[in-house]
Amino acid sequence: MTFAAQYFSKNQDRFISEWKEFLSFPSVSTDPAYSAECSACADWVATHLVRLGFRAELWPSATKPLVYGLLPGNPAKPTVLFYGHYDVQPPEPLELWTSPPFEPTIRDGRMYARGAQDNKGQVFFFLKALEALRAQGVDLPTIKVLIEGEEESGSVAMHAALPEWREPLAANILMVCDTGMVAHGRPTITMGLRGIIGCEVQVHGPAIDLHSGIYGGLVLNPIHALTKIVSGMFHDDGSIAIPGFYDGVVEPSPEDKARANGAPIDLDAIARNLGVPFAGGERALPPMERRGFRPTIEVNGIGGGYQGVGGKTVIPSYAMAKISSRLVAGQDPEATLRKIQRYVRDAAPVGCRVEFTAEKVGGQAFRLSTTSPVVTIATEAIRRSFGCEPVFLWEGASVPIIPDLASVSGSEPLLVGFGLEEDAIHSPNESFSLRQLEEGYRYTVSFFETL
Amino acid sequence: MTFAAQYFSKNQDRFISEWKEFLSFPSVSTDPAYSAECSACADWVATHLVRLGFRAELWPSATKPLVYGLLPGNPAKPTVLFYGHYDVQPPEPLELWTSPPFEPTIRDGRMYARGAQDNKGQVFFFLKALEALRAQGVDLPTIKVLIEGEEESGSVAMHAALPEWREPLAANILMVCDTGMVAHGRPTITMGLRGIIGCEVQVHGPAIDLHSGIYGGLVLNPIHALTKIVSGMFHDDGSIAIPGFYDGVVEPSPEDKARANGAPIDLDAIARNLGVPFAGGERALPPMERRGFRPTIEVNGIGGGYQGVGGKTVIPSYAMAKISSRLVAGQDPEATLRKIQRYVRDAAPVGCRVEFTAEKVGGQAFRLSTTSPVVTIATEAIRRSFGCEPVFLWEGASVPIIPDLASVSGSEPLLVGFGLEEDAIHSPNESFSLRQLEEGYRYTVSFFETL
Repeated sequence: MTFAAQYFSKNQDRFISEWKEFLSFPSVSTDPAYSAECSACADWVATHLVRLGFRAELWPSATKPLVYGLLPGNPAKPTVLFYGHYDVQPPEPLELWTSPPFEPTIRDGRMYARGAQDNKGQVFFFLKALEALRAQGVDLPTIKVLIEGEEESGSVAMHAALPEWREPLAANILMVCDTGMVAHGRPTITMGLRGIIGCEVQVHGPAIDLHSGIYGGLVLNPIHALTKIVSGMFHDDGSIAIPGFYDGVVEPSPEDKARANGAPIDLDAIARNLGVPFAGGERALPPMERRGFRPTIEVNGIGGGYQGVGGKTVIPSYAMAKISSRLVAGQDPEATLRKIQRYVRDAAPVGCRVEFTAEKVGGQAFRLSTTSPVVTIATEAIRRSFGCEPVFLWEGASVPIIPDLASVSGSEPLLVGFGLEEDAIHSPNESFSLRQLEEGYRYTVSFFETL
Repeated sequence: MTFAAQYFSKNQDRFISEWKEFLSFPSVSTDPAYSAECSACADWVATHLVRLGFRAELWPSATKPLVYGLLPGNPAKPTVLFYGHYDVQPPEPLELWTSPPFEPTIRDGRMYARGAQDNKGQVFFFLKALEALRAQGVDLPTIKVLIEGEEESGSVAMHAALPEWREPLAANILMVCDTGMVAHGRPTITMGLRGIIGCEVQVHGPAIDLHSGIYGGLVLNPIHALTKIVSGMFHDDGSIAIPGFYDGVVEPSPEDKARANGAPIDLDAIARNLGVPFAGGERALPPMERRGFRPTIEVNGIGGGYQGVGGKTVIPSYAMAKISSRLVAGQDPEATLRKIQRYVRDAAPVGCRVEFTAEKVGGQAFRLSTTSPVVTIATEAIRRSFGCEPVFLWEGASVPIIPDLASVSGSEPLLVGFGLEEDAIHSPNESFSLRQLEEGYRYTVSFFETL
């Protein structure tokens, strides 16, 4: 039994009681009623960091304070910046909780509380791993910690102030434990996230809704114009037809493609569950490549004219579509948005006025290769502590703060998390098992030993 | 001064008081609260017909009674079936009326009341013209009158029972005074109406709305499928791309095209008012031909996904479009609907389930030519009584009961009405001027004299 394993079992009761303290704060960031509780939770984190040997600070902001900690270490080793969040999702609906969301309760080896996993559980195993590593006297790198209080509500303060924090955040590796694994005992490295941009296209036609008999065939129907604009964005094979849209897209290596396609994920089961085959996007490519390595455009909403019961024979004066686009490595968010805007302008037929509004700008993608240095370290750490190869997942979702933080700090993101589907994050009865806590702890210890 | 003109001026006060009686009935057909008033109004019409020499009957129905009248006449002349309606639109909002809607009031030569024009005013001048013609001893054809009580609420009873009334309704000319003229003193013949069919297309995708990051590029977005289906209905020149859609469409004569294009209508002013050019439909054709002689497809409503404020990055599980199509002479409503259905089925991409629901079936078009016998008679009648040529308008709207009634009765529709924009039908302060009443009376007298 390793030192760390002994340390975990010896101190388990204390760990649980500290973890319960952390989970007791109703640090709901979206609701201003919980401001004081958020601040109290930030204090708790800062105090805990000090106890671990960190120099800790609370960085105030117009919204929620951020907790920053610095633990100077061996300058020959790569500096690690750990990012997490102490805020949680609202607990409602309360009546669906078996035990109250802010009265952490263990049942059948699982801790039930809002935030048990997301993200307090995964922050907590990181802190306890550091405690064990220091108790063992392991030669640690300089470790910086940034725990924010608004991840669930847009990271407003962080986005605003990131550029000013370039120096205190400077690091080589951005460590994040806010993701999941495919199964118990199968640590999973999130190898990439897509970026995101959004826009709204509004098509304005006649001044008022018109009688479709009197004006049908005379006035251009804004819905027709909009469907032409939208459908023209795609080729028949599902690829995107907007000029220059794929410019700069970084092609992954054949090895990474093979790894993505080989991930232990039962795509057939997922498709069966959704009731549809994976017939979207660039159908010529395997699903995992489409999700991990290819950008998309999705119309998230469309509306115009009469949508009620029965019929109403109008030519509407207006139609609109809400559109978002997932970007991949190599695509510039601003430039891509401009390409979409130019396409919309060029595709708009005569007889209507088209308005384009950018809604989300700047969500960059990031992508690692299996040959990236951080991935090599994490792979080795996982081999040592779990005796197996990591699972590599190139994800399709977007967490804009991570590429931004990586860029400001000059670090490479390394996302290894221990969440499972059954944790029910964001839902009633959120939980995290002691087994997952231990797995995260074990990985973290191994990571710093490997470094 | 003609006999009819003298008769009008001599009896004007009585005419006005009878007209006011007719207008006093709140014969609102959409609101069951007015059922008794509708029946009372039907009684009034039947009694009036009897006074004019008709054999009148009330035809009961599950909803509102119909008034039928028969005045046998010269069998050598074409039998005339006059169709009108005694029901009116609801008068709300009441506070916008200067005088109460069912207390008919004359101001500045105009009768203000709900129904003053639509359709009681235009029925009334027909009745008074008959009275004058009989007083003069003019040799009249057999005249049949059908005044229904549900025109403003779908002509339910009529549609249901029409086939049973083939014999009592049999006629050569279907006379309708429920339309407008382009200006005072410019009687206008409505030379055609388009038919109408409708449907709803629903596109079902994944079982629930999905995260557009996790599933973007994997699952087909139902909105994309719908916009592809809709935009594929049209060629780039605005013509309809559905296979066989134009089958059977009757091409008008070059003379009729010229008449349609030459109608004294200020298209530029209308377009200016709408704020858009006439850039819809088959743009290669002149606007009046597009409206009068060509069928259309219009999406009256479209919806899917998130339409609220801001954005929501989902792939929706569902999208739908409400579609109607205006048909022209030669197109079979049922067959055309089946062609649209077949197109939708064939255009639906893999990865979604498309549902097609027929909503309106059977609205046939009708079209006259300037060489039609009824048009020749009406033209002559207008020349005689107004000293000018009629205006010929091929309309784009649909009044399905008219082609149906024409078909059952075996007659040719002849639509000459004396409404003007300023009458504000269906709106507060509906009115009809004594001048329009006299114009309608004058035309009707001339029509029967010409016959």
